[in-house]
Amino acid sequence: MTEQEIKDQDLKYNLHSWSKQGNLNPIAVAKSEGIYFFDYAGKRYTDMSSQLVNLNLGHSNKEIVAAIKKQADQFCFMAPGYAVESRSTLAKMVIDLMPDNMGKVFFTNGGADANENAIKMARMFTGRNKIFSRYRSYHGSTFGAGNLTGEPRRYPLEPGIPGFIKFFDPYVYREAINFADEEAATAFYITKLREQVLYEGADNIAAIVMETITGSNGVIIPPKGYLKGVRKICDDYGIMMICDEVMAGFGRTGKMFAFEHFDVKPDIVSFAKGITCGYVQLGGVAVSKKIAAYFDDHTLLCGLTYSAHPLACAAGVAALKYYKDAHILENVEKVGKVLGELLEAFKMKHPCIGDVRYIGLFSALELVKNRQTKEPLVAYGQDPEGIMGGIIKKLIGKGFVTYSHENMIMVAPPLIITENQLQEAMTILDEVLYSVDKTI
Amino acid sequence: MTEQEIKDQDLKYNLHSWSKQGNLNPIAVAKSEGIYFFDYAGKRYTDMSSQLVNLNLGHSNKEIVAAIKKQADQFCFMAPGYAVESRSTLAKMVIDLMPDNMGKVFFTNGGADANENAIKMARMFTGRNKIFSRYRSYHGSTFGAGNLTGEPRRYPLEPGIPGFIKFFDPYVYREAINFADEEAATAFYITKLREQVLYEGADNIAAIVMETITGSNGVIIPPKGYLKGVRKICDDYGIMMICDEVMAGFGRTGKMFAFEHFDVKPDIVSFAKGITCGYVQLGGVAVSKKIAAYFDDHTLLCGLTYSAHPLACAAGVAALKYYKDAHILENVEKVGKVLGELLEAFKMKHPCIGDVRYIGLFSALELVKNRQTKEPLVAYGQDPEGIMGGIIKKLIGKGFVTYSHENMIMVAPPLIITENQLQEAMTILDEVLYSVDKTI
Ligand SMILES: Cc1ncc(COP(=O)(O)O)c(C=O)c1O
Ligand SMILES: Cc1ncc(COP(=O)(O)O)c(C=O)c1O
Repeated sequence: MTEQEIKDQDLKYNLHSWSKQGNLNPIAVAKSEGIYFFDYAGKRYTDMSSQLVNLNLGHSNKEIVAAIKKQADQFCFMAPGYAVESRSTLAKMVIDLMPDNMGKVFFTNGGADANENAIKMARMFTGRNKIFSRYRSYHGSTFGAGNLTGEPRRYPLEPGIPGFIKFFDPYVYREAINFADEEAATAFYITKLREQVLYEGADNIAAIVMETITGSNGVIIPPKGYLKGVRKICDDYGIMMICDEVMAGFGRTGKMFAFEHFDVKPDIVSFAKGITCGYVQLGGVAVSKKIAAYFDDHTLLCGLTYSAHPLACAAGVAALKYYKDAHILENVEKVGKVLGELLEAFKMKHPCIGDVRYIGLFSALELVKNRQTKEPLVAYGQDPEGIMGGIIKKLIGKGFVTYSHENMIMVAPPLIITENQLQEAMTILDEVLYSVDKTI
Repeated sequence: MTEQEIKDQDLKYNLHSWSKQGNLNPIAVAKSEGIYFFDYAGKRYTDMSSQLVNLNLGHSNKEIVAAIKKQADQFCFMAPGYAVESRSTLAKMVIDLMPDNMGKVFFTNGGADANENAIKMARMFTGRNKIFSRYRSYHGSTFGAGNLTGEPRRYPLEPGIPGFIKFFDPYVYREAINFADEEAATAFYITKLREQVLYEGADNIAAIVMETITGSNGVIIPPKGYLKGVRKICDDYGIMMICDEVMAGFGRTGKMFAFEHFDVKPDIVSFAKGITCGYVQLGGVAVSKKIAAYFDDHTLLCGLTYSAHPLACAAGVAALKYYKDAHILENVEKVGKVLGELLEAFKMKHPCIGDVRYIGLFSALELVKNRQTKEPLVAYGQDPEGIMGGIIKKLIGKGFVTYSHENMIMVAPPLIITENQLQEAMTILDEVLYSVDKTI
């Protein structure tokens, strides 16, 4: 097919996520390699968001592709009830990466159904009903995961599921209070959370679900001691602590899992994206040994046709091996340091930047009209003139591909990016930010 | 890894669907081919349920495997926003297979998220909230799909989502009334449904969701005129008719979609399983041109990272091509006729059979203690002695692999099965049924 046919047929027959279909103009992709992909005219794009922050090892990783082909030669599919080598191997590899309290894995197809099953298991194990999660979070768009979600992508799923409760995340940059330091912020948020837990009835609460580091809502990094505070509340009241590591997991922050930065052990971890980098769809839920043991003699009322898909597991085995063999965490640490320095330098010179937040190769720039008042470049939930869309379009036009959320720009390149590649790409962002400066 | 290591590691690290983990003994699968798979000792199993009624084209289909490898060489993944050849091609192929009222496709990872998105779209398009679905149905196990589900697999998702309403399916065999004929049954069920629609407030109802032919709850085939009756109710009140073709679709019943047997056009069709046969996970929702046009200037608030996965779409293109090139529908008609004759003959000679229901290569045997009273072999929701499990174990021991639901045994082999292969496999079922006869 020609480029034009691919585009036309795409627009004629495919519904695209999160958009009006009437004015789309998708790029047709001809090939991809490393941190780059190419359209049919040969134009090169640098993938500065790792697609949807899932392509941690970049495009067309040879080892993962080879593993997929090898598995396809044995078989692509056997139902979840069978023992299959790639399935057995990957489950062990995942548990081996986790803290020592973790016991077993239930594999799913993606992030949303990982979270769906995480909350189901927490409810079954505790016998309790209520589920806490946070505003400014995204956990997926199925009814369960979408009811966890604390932003407008939840709205089409309302009226919501009974027992889903929201609390505020530690979004220090925009908090109504000016905290003296991180500890003061933590004390505030943890006190409020404990208060809310008590007022909802601690004995009714099955789980507290959090993105360890909030991702698509703007890389919101918890202040020092926050996660330990949540852990303590969970311990005090027998509540399951569920960390959603779908976006933050698998090296993105410089550790295999983001919770490792904060010295806590969750009871349940949901994951997806980085485990296979999306080469074949895979998500999952890891649960503690205690929870796993509970299901020895209680029926696990979870299931999907494609649970622990053999081809996906084979891709996962190859990906996890690659993280290790290619010393990905070291690269994230090294290049992540440069990213942080660049972002701080951008903030110094671009008045349109209100805040930069970064950890490893996971970062967001928050754009403002006025740095003092912190007035966002576009008001919450509103961008009638398409200002943010315009900025993204300009970036993509110059070959820097990423996406925005509200007044924020995500920068999260593949974890294999070199320092030079990063420097080169960031000059494009620098340029575009100058043009934004002029508009405020 | 050795067979024992694969099994041990599987049981140590993987959580298995719908079971207590304490007493599992999974078969470790070494290879698979056509309608067969093999354990590490070389024992051959005939796959008489096509795994989870998804492997319509059987194991290790060479064309699908080749297509997967070819796509993997171009790239495995590009985000849903990009135009990709396999994505454009498959969307067109799916719409071309559908009735002429259908317009566009939204691809997902499996059956559950297909249904999740189907009901979201129906709600957005109609601006209404309530969703009707049936008892004795399975639509998936995420919160939305699970709340559609009308059997115990829904229970862990309760208290349910507001606005999800259940009605009874046309389960004529066990109805409290003896109907004179199919038309009388249809008149009864459609009158009751219309009554319920009115009492729930027809203007509040976004959609009526049905498995076109109820699958895992026992191949319940609607009586003549039933689906047209539902279509009429939907037309009268502006309700979206959603057919779940996840299990019944893609040739299983002898037509590409089961609704073709009943001369109706749904507004929305959810599908999964047979579209790729599970070689790579794929599901989707096809919507009418009217609904598709609505989203030209209204935001489609649906999305998942792996929507329209390129590798999955490539597998789908190859599978759909194979259905056609290998004349699968013709084979289903031919061998399906033999299956029906065998089941009727079984019913004649085995007093343990209360009812056999079949269409194409989709069938179930309902086991009873007494054919006159229709007392089921195991009471609803209860099988403390593991009677049904025992029958399945005996079948699998003899190499006939399938699964049961309540007092029913599913027989749904790959659609490539030959008449001889079917005859050979069914002698095993025949034998085992003799042993069941003796117990009643
Ligand atoms: C933190 C988080 N959780 C869950 C999800 C949902 O994953 P999926 O899109 O695979 O359903 C996402 C997707 O972006 C995510 O970022
Ligand atoms: C009719 C029907 N709908 C939906 C589903 C759910 O599909 P999945 O298991 O891929 O989530 C199934 C699964 O068996 C099904 O039979």
